[in-house]
Amino acid sequence: MRSQTATSLAELVQAEVSGNADLPIADGQALADAGPEHISFVAHKRNLEELAVSRAGAVVISRSLYEADARIAAAAGDRTVLLVQDALQAFLKMLNVLRPQPARREPGISHSAHVHPSAEISKGTVVYPGAHIAEDTQLGEDCIIHPNVVIGSGCRLGAGVVLFPGVVLYPGCQLGNQVIVHSGTVIGSDGFGYRLIDGGHRKLPHFGIVRIEDDVEIGSCVTIDRAMIGETVIGRGSRLDNLVHIAHNCQLGEHNLIMASAAIAGSVRTGDYLTCAGQVGMADHIQIGDRVTIGPQSGIVRDIADGETVVGTPGEPAMDTRRIWRTQRKLPEMWKTVRELQNRISSLESALAAATGEQGPALNSSSATSDDSRPEDGPYRAASSPAA
Amino acid sequence: MRSQTATSLAELVQAEVSGNADLPIADGQALADAGPEHISFVAHKRNLEELAVSRAGAVVISRSLYEADARIAAAAGDRTVLLVQDALQAFLKMLNVLRPQPARREPGISHSAHVHPSAEISKGTVVYPGAHIAEDTQLGEDCIIHPNVVIGSGCRLGAGVVLFPGVVLYPGCQLGNQVIVHSGTVIGSDGFGYRLIDGGHRKLPHFGIVRIEDDVEIGSCVTIDRAMIGETVIGRGSRLDNLVHIAHNCQLGEHNLIMASAAIAGSVRTGDYLTCAGQVGMADHIQIGDRVTIGPQSGIVRDIADGETVVGTPGEPAMDTRRIWRTQRKLPEMWKTVRELQNRISSLESALAAATGEQGPALNSSSATSDDSRPEDGPYRAASSPAA
Amino acid sequence: MRSQTATSLAELVQAEVSGNADLPIADGQALADAGPEHISFVAHKRNLEELAVSRAGAVVISRSLYEADARIAAAAGDRTVLLVQDALQAFLKMLNVLRPQPARREPGISHSAHVHPSAEISKGTVVYPGAHIAEDTQLGEDCIIHPNVVIGSGCRLGAGVVLFPGVVLYPGCQLGNQVIVHSGTVIGSDGFGYRLIDGGHRKLPHFGIVRIEDDVEIGSCVTIDRAMIGETVIGRGSRLDNLVHIAHNCQLGEHNLIMASAAIAGSVRTGDYLTCAGQVGMADHIQIGDRVTIGPQSGIVRDIADGETVVGTPGEPAMDTRRIWRTQRKLPEMWKTVRELQNRISSLESALAAATGEQGPALNSSSATSDDSRPEDGPYRAASSPAA
Repeated sequence: MRSQTATSLAELVQAEVSGNADLPIADGQALADAGPEHISFVAHKRNLEELAVSRAGAVVISRSLYEADARIAAAAGDRTVLLVQDALQAFLKMLNVLRPQPARREPGISHSAHVHPSAEISKGTVVYPGAHIAEDTQLGEDCIIHPNVVIGSGCRLGAGVVLFPGVVLYPGCQLGNQVIVHSGTVIGSDGFGYRLIDGGHRKLPHFGIVRIEDDVEIGSCVTIDRAMIGETVIGRGSRLDNLVHIAHNCQLGEHNLIMASAAIAGSVRTGDYLTCAGQVGMADHIQIGDRVTIGPQSGIVRDIADGETVVGTPGEPAMDTRRIWRTQRKLPEMWKTVRELQNRISSLESALAAATGEQGPALNSSSATSDDSRPEDGPYRAASSPAA
Repeated sequence: MRSQTATSLAELVQAEVSGNADLPIADGQALADAGPEHISFVAHKRNLEELAVSRAGAVVISRSLYEADARIAAAAGDRTVLLVQDALQAFLKMLNVLRPQPARREPGISHSAHVHPSAEISKGTVVYPGAHIAEDTQLGEDCIIHPNVVIGSGCRLGAGVVLFPGVVLYPGCQLGNQVIVHSGTVIGSDGFGYRLIDGGHRKLPHFGIVRIEDDVEIGSCVTIDRAMIGETVIGRGSRLDNLVHIAHNCQLGEHNLIMASAAIAGSVRTGDYLTCAGQVGMADHIQIGDRVTIGPQSGIVRDIADGETVVGTPGEPAMDTRRIWRTQRKLPEMWKTVRELQNRISSLESALAAATGEQGPALNSSSATSDDSRPEDGPYRAASSPAA
Repeated sequence: MRSQTATSLAELVQAEVSGNADLPIADGQALADAGPEHISFVAHKRNLEELAVSRAGAVVISRSLYEADARIAAAAGDRTVLLVQDALQAFLKMLNVLRPQPARREPGISHSAHVHPSAEISKGTVVYPGAHIAEDTQLGEDCIIHPNVVIGSGCRLGAGVVLFPGVVLYPGCQLGNQVIVHSGTVIGSDGFGYRLIDGGHRKLPHFGIVRIEDDVEIGSCVTIDRAMIGETVIGRGSRLDNLVHIAHNCQLGEHNLIMASAAIAGSVRTGDYLTCAGQVGMADHIQIGDRVTIGPQSGIVRDIADGETVVGTPGEPAMDTRRIWRTQRKLPEMWKTVRELQNRISSLESALAAATGEQGPALNSSSATSDDSRPEDGPYRAASSPAA
């Protein structure tokens, strides 16, 4: 931690200060965890109660919130207050100063890395010990290749790529600029493609690659399989959470958000701005439109049109699925009601038969579960005819 | 890429050529991606439309398709056509020539690998830098141990085993011949076995092993836990997709297909030729018969007999589950209908009471939700008796 | 294997022996796998049938079982029997002797490990080749750092910590005493936190850490993300199975059991003694009480109170969900019944109309799906009035 004052932080984020501007600030913390020596932040109305009871000595608040709701000023009390346009953004900027990150390693290639002589590594790039970079690879400028990363032959990396410890790129994969890949992730392994021949699942060779476009971030322990012939693509600006599976030949659009443990089968195509929640599964070969939202644990087995929000297994429009879920809870009650109605109808039938002088047995026969009993041919039509 | 002509490729796959046999072929591509310098393939009727609009200069087609449907010849037009028995297989064979794989590293053990002196490594085997092979291990001939693989003490590997970068084998694991394990996969970690003693979950030691039979392929980031006493077994010819979890003491049969993110709890036994779709969960100790198929995201909580196809959570026969799913969509409508029927019955009861001179209140009592109202003791039987 | 006799094993676990006490014992095996040279164990009544047909030469049995059920002695027959208080615990203790583990490597740091000079490594700790330990780290006594483990800068490890091959700790993580982490697990990667600004998902920097309390065991390929500001916490004595995902800012209580492939979204708080089954998903920011049990594949979207058992998606009390599941299976039948009741009511309405001299059409109008038809304002009330 590097100590600051409220004033020095205010200058950093161009804040307007009220209260004690000389207050020393040791660190930034969430409202619940902060003490008198800390600065915290209020970025949503829902933080109001937390603010009231927080021990934070200083707080940075979004100006629009502060001005819209007088209770926020009241809850802030006599703390040092910094008003800014965007409290979360300002707070994170302060943390950058309050918690200086360890100096980045000098650019260059560790003597304990295993780099093939044919690999081209541009200036500014760091290669840590234990990393393995195979033949005919090209790495752009200012990449960080952490310890024990393995980059297969023929891979192409743009500038500013960060591969965290233990990432594996199979041969031939292409990563654009500013791509971040977290530890344990495997890119370019063979797809799950077999043909049953003479009683054995014979492996289909995978000649394709994985191509990751610019500015993509991929979490930990993600698996992205190479295409059989062409490319598996992760579109520009997309973010994949931990433990996501992307099968061979998938083509994800731009700015997709795919949350933890989702599994997308082969040859799925998605549009731009997909929001796919955790543990979702998608069947192979389906097409997802632009700006689609998929709820957690959903199972998607059909194409989804632009702008749809789907939930459930099988995934259907969210409103329908939620209505089904609400009704489901009433199922036991409903079942009881249906049986009760059956009884009441039987009673009515008997009563009516009695009232109209018909014989019971003829009416009782309708109590048997006859599948296609239609009014026009049912016993009642017959029963009522004579009485008409 | 290594350029070929239609003739040279036809010779490779024993095809009959029509059209320009001298056409130079730069690469193979899927129909949608191919240009005039590419060969593509038609292996299914469903490729007909793609063929018609493809820019591919040449196309290899399964003879049976071509002869069965004249539209395929029409869609192929004046392209160079290669007729073969199995278009996909022929096409992949061509790709082998069109896209020569980088020469395999010379057999031998990298000086940067960490191999215990007691390890026995047979001829033809490659050990890459950063690999770690512990004491008392035995590796068969022609294995490929990629960078940063860790093989624990006492492991036994057959011939032709490929361990991709970063694979970890815990001590004592046994892999048969021609086993392929993709990156990030962990074989032989301790099973999830604890006993609650004095308020703490005390670890049960795991003395068993994992045994992988011949010709198994295992995807990336798969976890297979060792048995507590005996063996966790993956049967011959089985294929596990990425991110699959196999718990301790499981015994999988031969030629199982387990798709991505499936999780199989402890001591499950499966027969041969299981097809288990993605994200399936299986409860511990259940038994799955031969040639069983399990649909995606299913939750299997009971034994499944030979040949069954099950879907859903809890997993039931596919036809039943699909029928339930279809009906579920009508649940809100059904609920409305039931309430409406309630009202119509109440009205009928009132009307009948009025018609037969009974008093309203006595009949209205039947509107109350009485659970076990049976015809013989319900108010209607009573009501109708006097009128009979 | 190190051969023993029944007597030597009996002394080890303080057992009372009957039968041949000199029997040589080559190994311990489960009842189904054991031969005449093996000892096995009976710890539950349900092992009775297996015991009867087992080929085991000796068997260790829990005394309470043996004394409570004479059939166990009968099934044991003339085998050598060792009676103890806790058969499983005694059996595992015997395996420790029968299957001696390979001698642990001498303490010390491998010359092939990459350890920053500023790292503090306490006595008794082993660091294997290929491990990478960054600056300003502190490792307690008697830790085992397996090959290719990566420990980021500023990490703190207590005593007796075991990190299996390939584990990655991002900078600043804190592990208590006796923590075990299995291979492929990633602790401290950045959380999935983004803000949509000008059409791009802008990364929120993550300044927080992960803190793992004493005596925690974490399986293979688990991902635990660092907090944005404070700490992601795994409480004392908890056990996480393979492929579990814990998102940023989660705070798990003590002695939690989280089974394979569960995914817990951001900022979830759990109490103590949670039992969370496999493939469960939890939505962000929910709170789980003490001693909660969650069934497999459940999707938890709301807070759960102390002691609750919940199942299903969305997760509801287990009894309710099970009742719903049972009823669901009857849905197709129920739907048929409802349609049939509709017809019977229509017939009744017609019959009653005929009987009371009303005209059909007036009554038939009630067949139309009128949502809010109440008895008091429905056609029947009107129809019956004249007849009353």
